[in-house]
Amino acid sequence: MYADVAARGDHGLVRRGLRRLLPIRKDEGGGRMSRNPSTILKASPTAAIDPTASGCPTPREETEQILLGHGSGGMMSADLMRRVFLPAFDNEVLAAMEDQATVAFPSGRRLAFTTDSYVVRPIFFPGGDIGRLAVNGTVNDLAVGGARPLYLSAAFILEEGLAIADLKRVVRSMREACDESGVAMVTGDTKVVDRGKGDRIFITTSGVGVVPAGRSLSIRNARPGDRILVSGTMGDHGIAILSVREGIEFETVLESDTAPLNGLADVLLEACPDVRCLRDPTRGGLSSALNELAKGSGVGVELEESAIPVRPEVRAACELFGLDPMYVANEGKLIAVVPRETAGRALAAMRSHPLGRDSAVVGEVVSSHRGLVVMTSPFGGQRMVAMIAGEHLPRIC
Amino acid sequence: MYADVAARGDHGLVRRGLRRLLPIRKDEGGGRMSRNPSTILKASPTAAIDPTASGCPTPREETEQILLGHGSGGMMSADLMRRVFLPAFDNEVLAAMEDQATVAFPSGRRLAFTTDSYVVRPIFFPGGDIGRLAVNGTVNDLAVGGARPLYLSAAFILEEGLAIADLKRVVRSMREACDESGVAMVTGDTKVVDRGKGDRIFITTSGVGVVPAGRSLSIRNARPGDRILVSGTMGDHGIAILSVREGIEFETVLESDTAPLNGLADVLLEACPDVRCLRDPTRGGLSSALNELAKGSGVGVELEESAIPVRPEVRAACELFGLDPMYVANEGKLIAVVPRETAGRALAAMRSHPLGRDSAVVGEVVSSHRGLVVMTSPFGGQRMVAMIAGEHLPRIC
Repeated sequence: MYADVAARGDHGLVRRGLRRLLPIRKDEGGGRMSRNPSTILKASPTAAIDPTASGCPTPREETEQILLGHGSGGMMSADLMRRVFLPAFDNEVLAAMEDQATVAFPSGRRLAFTTDSYVVRPIFFPGGDIGRLAVNGTVNDLAVGGARPLYLSAAFILEEGLAIADLKRVVRSMREACDESGVAMVTGDTKVVDRGKGDRIFITTSGVGVVPAGRSLSIRNARPGDRILVSGTMGDHGIAILSVREGIEFETVLESDTAPLNGLADVLLEACPDVRCLRDPTRGGLSSALNELAKGSGVGVELEESAIPVRPEVRAACELFGLDPMYVANEGKLIAVVPRETAGRALAAMRSHPLGRDSAVVGEVVSSHRGLVVMTSPFGGQRMVAMIAGEHLPRIC
Repeated sequence: MYADVAARGDHGLVRRGLRRLLPIRKDEGGGRMSRNPSTILKASPTAAIDPTASGCPTPREETEQILLGHGSGGMMSADLMRRVFLPAFDNEVLAAMEDQATVAFPSGRRLAFTTDSYVVRPIFFPGGDIGRLAVNGTVNDLAVGGARPLYLSAAFILEEGLAIADLKRVVRSMREACDESGVAMVTGDTKVVDRGKGDRIFITTSGVGVVPAGRSLSIRNARPGDRILVSGTMGDHGIAILSVREGIEFETVLESDTAPLNGLADVLLEACPDVRCLRDPTRGGLSSALNELAKGSGVGVELEESAIPVRPEVRAACELFGLDPMYVANEGKLIAVVPRETAGRALAAMRSHPLGRDSAVVGEVVSSHRGLVVMTSPFGGQRMVAMIAGEHLPRIC
């Protein structure tokens, strides 16, 4: 069903399907494990969630907009730096306002370095915003490499006309996310493009971290017999974004799971230094991450569908939209591949962390069907879980 | 004059001014130092330079476009990685296709880390393209910190519909630029935004480098008596971009000066380890860089206008468009602030490098008018060179 939708790329069709379902009965009992969409969702396309409405900007800020001059590298850029960025990311390295950050680096260690652009639409959504996403995403890319994230950079491409209040709100989120994961934003850049040549805010965050001596996590490390763990429910981020875009509401607000995973990774790696590989299943979801693992290590992957935690709201929304939670993006979930012998210890360690309470063993690495991911359904059937083919949910991160 | 144009942001007016000047006499003698625009420029709005026309893509590539799926993180992303990025940036770290690059790092040194987004329009221009600019810009931000550039990342935000051939051409340029400056592109990311929500290609490059022990260059280091050197002609990049946009031609093609400055910086720093500060005067030009220096060091800056190298074509175009070369962007020029005693040695060192042949001492640091930059004209008059106020030439880098 997913493959059809992806091939047609026809979200309009899906939405028309939603409208035909209206009005749908509101569930009275909450029924957490129900698989019937109508008991979970209440659809209200005319009263879409406006997550930007919850901000409380001062009237003055509301009228202020990003102008081309804010990307000039001149006075207006300096003003933006002083008013928006420096107060948020208050640290000496950034405040030096050199073109580059120069930072102390522990000697004799390996450096981890990563980058990601964020173009999520809308920029504010339940559970987070583009700023929080950008910081957490880069922290997580370092964490899944076994690195301790240290320093981040942020480069903004702003569309002329953006409200400064919105930018401030995003930057505040970034600061909070930096504090939460213990990283410092040490350098940055701002460009402004003309109206209609961007979409409010794009953010590219890069990060550097240090990899402890002797640690080597890689998608090439999986061995038959290894167990595959996930740190919680799959698909929350993607469905939270989709629900805002499509104007559907859940009885409880479904929030993005955006979170920094370095703390969880630390706990896990301390308990089980023999972890083979960590991944965060973002774009392309669990399916893409495990397909990369299967190909990278030249092994097969077997999943138990019933063991994969999925929120009932997410499952219901996926059924409604013809999506598969296996392909939906997560922004605060860890996949861990660990040797069979230490799987129990790994699971206990992950569950001991607030971000890993719903951790579960969801499958294992096998020597058959190398390069492929196969999933066993609750009814015993098996299906191949291929890599995502086209775009599932565009601009999800 | 400049301030007027910037305040109105009215390039249409300027262009109408240009048309009124047509037809203009073509200069017969080449007169390199002429200050009369009509002897240098030939304007042909109907036959604008098409710098993209020089590529030679295969027919198949020409019809291929970036689709939303190319940003999916799935199969199409992997395909793009395999077809476009891996062949270009052939190195083991990137080929590992982990979410982060992990690289060896010399022990006991300081790390330099920088980021910049590139949104230049058009993406191909005389002397370079957005890819070359993105690599050189980040290399230069590291070089002016006294760092040896080592590793780069690149994050692409592509507009749906972009020709893959254009992307390949940009990526090839990036590879060549990496080779030229001796850096490795070790990690990257690609996002695709819907048609009309971006502008073909935006690139964010980040870079890390190592700062030799004991080296500390900073805009806070300037002292009265120091000499200010520039490595060549000012404003080439900005005017090269402007000329493409406005459809004006010069007798010889005016090219962007985009170039990696790490080699030049090395030569200079080896000859004069006591260099106070290096800067590359990009957006905002020489003026912004020196204003930052004056404020950062709490000193005054005095410039000798006649000593500042400016190509006659650039000077002519500036007069025509009401711009000031002091504010126009450079992408391959170094500003060096050095103690008076070593200025001669510094100048000789810079001139010994191919990118510094036109180096000149253009001014000095003074203890009067602290925080301000003052320029003496060839006629003896003095004027304050303020920081750029609004946007001079939008999307110049």
